[in-house]
Amino acid sequence: MILVNGLPAETVNVLDRGLAYGDGVFRTLRTHAGQPLWWRDQYAKLAADAAALALACPDEAGLLAEVCQVAEAGQGVVKIMLTRGAGARGYAPPAAQACTRIVLSTPLPPHARPDAAVDVTARWCTLRLARQPRLAGIKHLNRLENVLARAEWNDPEIFEGLLCDDSGAVIGGVMSNLLIAKAGELFTPDLSQSGVAGVARARLLRALARRGIPAHIACLSPDAILAADEVMICNSIIGVRRVARLDDATWSPAGWTDTLKTALDDEVD
Amino acid sequence: MILVNGLPAETVNVLDRGLAYGDGVFRTLRTHAGQPLWWRDQYAKLAADAAALALACPDEAGLLAEVCQVAEAGQGVVKIMLTRGAGARGYAPPAAQACTRIVLSTPLPPHARPDAAVDVTARWCTLRLARQPRLAGIKHLNRLENVLARAEWNDPEIFEGLLCDDSGAVIGGVMSNLLIAKAGELFTPDLSQSGVAGVARARLLRALARRGIPAHIACLSPDAILAADEVMICNSIIGVRRVARLDDATWSPAGWTDTLKTALDDEVD
Repeated sequence: MILVNGLPAETVNVLDRGLAYGDGVFRTLRTHAGQPLWWRDQYAKLAADAAALALACPDEAGLLAEVCQVAEAGQGVVKIMLTRGAGARGYAPPAAQACTRIVLSTPLPPHARPDAAVDVTARWCTLRLARQPRLAGIKHLNRLENVLARAEWNDPEIFEGLLCDDSGAVIGGVMSNLLIAKAGELFTPDLSQSGVAGVARARLLRALARRGIPAHIACLSPDAILAADEVMICNSIIGVRRVARLDDATWSPAGWTDTLKTALDDEVD
Repeated sequence: MILVNGLPAETVNVLDRGLAYGDGVFRTLRTHAGQPLWWRDQYAKLAADAAALALACPDEAGLLAEVCQVAEAGQGVVKIMLTRGAGARGYAPPAAQACTRIVLSTPLPPHARPDAAVDVTARWCTLRLARQPRLAGIKHLNRLENVLARAEWNDPEIFEGLLCDDSGAVIGGVMSNLLIAKAGELFTPDLSQSGVAGVARARLLRALARRGIPAHIACLSPDAILAADEVMICNSIIGVRRVARLDDATWSPAGWTDTLKTALDDEVD
């Protein structure tokens, strides 16, 4: 089911600035029995991303009602897109903004089902992410880098591709954030120049802080990833997964993935 | 009038990857008496940009027929958008591609009419363009940088904003390419890392070469712009304009804008 500005629809205006310029933001979240998971964090991130682009964010209660309206009965995924709406030709944002709000549900993908394997295989992507501090961290609709990176492989055994920025710093996965464990501490890439700062990562950092487990936002090299005791990826749909293989490198479980999964599950909304 | 995949329509599928990811390219061109100007170059650029993203480009004759079908009777603008079509959730490009082709006309904007002033005022933007060689030069649908840069001013006296990349090199205008004249030669920024390599700029470079006027693609600093004998911007809609003022800097005409306008007008299709 799809709602566009609250009404059932399957199309948007061809003049929408989301299409013309990718002028908008989005969220992808899990639902269970018609309710969104991690809603408070998801809405807060949507509002923060919208504010970063000077987009008006819909009010929380109304948006939540729409998410519940479209959500599947069992487990599912809901995507929210928020754009600057239809406008005249030209980059200048219209003075009177009428944002477009799209809320749609899709079935839970097989790789996100509860019985999906915790261990996954990843690869290094050759594409280097550009550094744009004005857009870094935001889940905006300009995602051609992700599309190009994801197009680098079609081997279904490869679950995720890892990306560096053009300085060589590791930023994360095409569709996920990255965490590594080393000598009893956790590290996740700094996302102030590139990448998307996802809600699962934010919840994990909060949960680790509550448990007194040291977790650092850091500049990480590919060598630092390879030297890690455990490499993990996370997002709102798949939760936490252990990278068991990264091209030719392999890791045995060191226990961190279970720790993080438990921390994520225990984190209250 | 709007055609979506050849049929009159005002909407596109909400699942279109052009909206979801900005996964597509576009063209904006002038029309006169129902015919596109510079069609050969416009189509060649669309095809090159599509190829850079591995998008199937529509055949030339069919697309030209659609452009003529939507074009206004007098002078006007036609925009062509080409996206990777509707797809399932996820960045991976679908194996079977069914691109979306949108062709629409808009009236000629006032600033592009034949009687519009040749001299314009510009400003420096504070936003710095990221460097992404995989996307540089392509007129793709990921244009949030342009939107953010254009949102920096709303003074209608300011016609254009000039942008540097994060290394400090000047790239061009928010909606135009930049050329400067210095000591009898012309220079235009290198667009291998950022920016859009427009058709007007390409035609100008070709016309200048034919006339034996030295023209160089170069790395230009803001100081080089300020030290120029004449500063010009160009695109397919406005042609060539002289930058008479750039923040506090002003220039008197040095004759180059007329030379370039004549060269552009004389260039055969």
